[in-house]
Amino acid sequence: MPTYRLDLAYDGTGFRGWARNAGVRTVQEVVEEALARVVGEDVATSVAGRTDAGVHATGQVVSFRTTRPADPGRLQRAITSLLGPEVVALRAAEVPDGFDARFSARWRRYRYTLDTGPAPDPLRRLSAWHVPWPLDPAPMNTAAAGFVGEHDFASFCRAAEGRSTVRRVLSAGWRTAGGEELVFEVSATSFCHQLVRSMVAFCVDAGRGRVDPGSLPEVLAARDRNASRGAAPPHGLVLVEVGYGPG
Amino acid sequence: MPTYRLDLAYDGTGFRGWARNAGVRTVQEVVEEALARVVGEDVATSVAGRTDAGVHATGQVVSFRTTRPADPGRLQRAITSLLGPEVVALRAAEVPDGFDARFSARWRRYRYTLDTGPAPDPLRRLSAWHVPWPLDPAPMNTAAAGFVGEHDFASFCRAAEGRSTVRRVLSAGWRTAGGEELVFEVSATSFCHQLVRSMVAFCVDAGRGRVDPGSLPEVLAARDRNASRGAAPPHGLVLVEVGYGPG
Repeated sequence: MPTYRLDLAYDGTGFRGWARNAGVRTVQEVVEEALARVVGEDVATSVAGRTDAGVHATGQVVSFRTTRPADPGRLQRAITSLLGPEVVALRAAEVPDGFDARFSARWRRYRYTLDTGPAPDPLRRLSAWHVPWPLDPAPMNTAAAGFVGEHDFASFCRAAEGRSTVRRVLSAGWRTAGGEELVFEVSATSFCHQLVRSMVAFCVDAGRGRVDPGSLPEVLAARDRNASRGAAPPHGLVLVEVGYGPG
Repeated sequence: MPTYRLDLAYDGTGFRGWARNAGVRTVQEVVEEALARVVGEDVATSVAGRTDAGVHATGQVVSFRTTRPADPGRLQRAITSLLGPEVVALRAAEVPDGFDARFSARWRRYRYTLDTGPAPDPLRRLSAWHVPWPLDPAPMNTAAAGFVGEHDFASFCRAAEGRSTVRRVLSAGWRTAGGEELVFEVSATSFCHQLVRSMVAFCVDAGRGRVDPGSLPEVLAARDRNASRGAAPPHGLVLVEVGYGPG
């Protein structure tokens, strides 16, 4: 029974997130339906990042097993032709038995884009959060640096009964891009729910001077969702890359 | 009778271009209707660049005169609140009598973006042309350099009975941006119809090795639309800036 890996990009605007959910349109549902048409039997995917409603991907990874061997090139073209331009398959490959897009992943990298122009850019309205306030990048990067390392992120995650909120952040930082853009990139072994968007909200408040980035250790120590600064809107967020080990 | 200048950004996707045209939705129509609501009388605008259907702007300029003086700040906020996020007003100002967005303009600058990734990026599908062929930027820049200067661009323009096709190009060049993007920027005193998109089509064919950029002088000398390489699609094109003289 062969295993396939599929790398996907999608515009999350028209979806209620990745995960199947009765009565609403999700990326998982349209992808699994398209795969079933191509391979000729029902398919259950495993996914590297369960993106929320409105969140995008340029490097999502899914895997699935099937009793019906398929040509990877045909698989890739069929997905893009059935689901494009909203969802496209970047690559498809047969992978070793045991590969699982979720459990084999070593790290995930997300990007969050702020539109810092004088008015919201109409061309970026679906993929950047327009922030009308003047922002100082220095305290934003102080806050970002404070996220790096292993921490309990309970103050920055939506609670999920009984699940650990300890995560290891590998890198986090802001960079300017083209004058009217501030881009946050963060990688971690994994992310709890709304973690990136909560980090962004905290950094933006630091950039506005509404919170001292030096208070981050206390905010983390509180382990209380109300101790942080809420969550930035989903549409600025993109899952850009998932890392797997050698082999 | 005061004159106002309004700087606009818009997503051209949902419009049949700038210019009013009976029975179809145009940017000029929605902007003039919004202005009429704000100032309280009919308004006729002059525009720096008459963008085609599907073409965007981040720096369009319009001007109009009205017998009803209006506060520029209120004008700007009202336009964005009536037309955003598809069309937004970046700035509004009262300008000296005699200023005309079209006739006072000294130059226009356009940008054209190619998505050179392995599959069309869903997040850029409305603002970049996905080119599936490998492209060599060197001959593309040779072609671009050949456009600079004063030339008769009849081979690169849609014919308009009796109108001159001589234009002065001030700068033109390609740059890579972030690995999976090639961006063309070109400025000229003014542009004839489809000039930028025809330049892009020629450069892309040069980058694919399908046309020798050294043939450009002959192509220009032919003064025949059929001598060039057609036009790139509109959705990759953005009017980014319009230059006016001092005072």
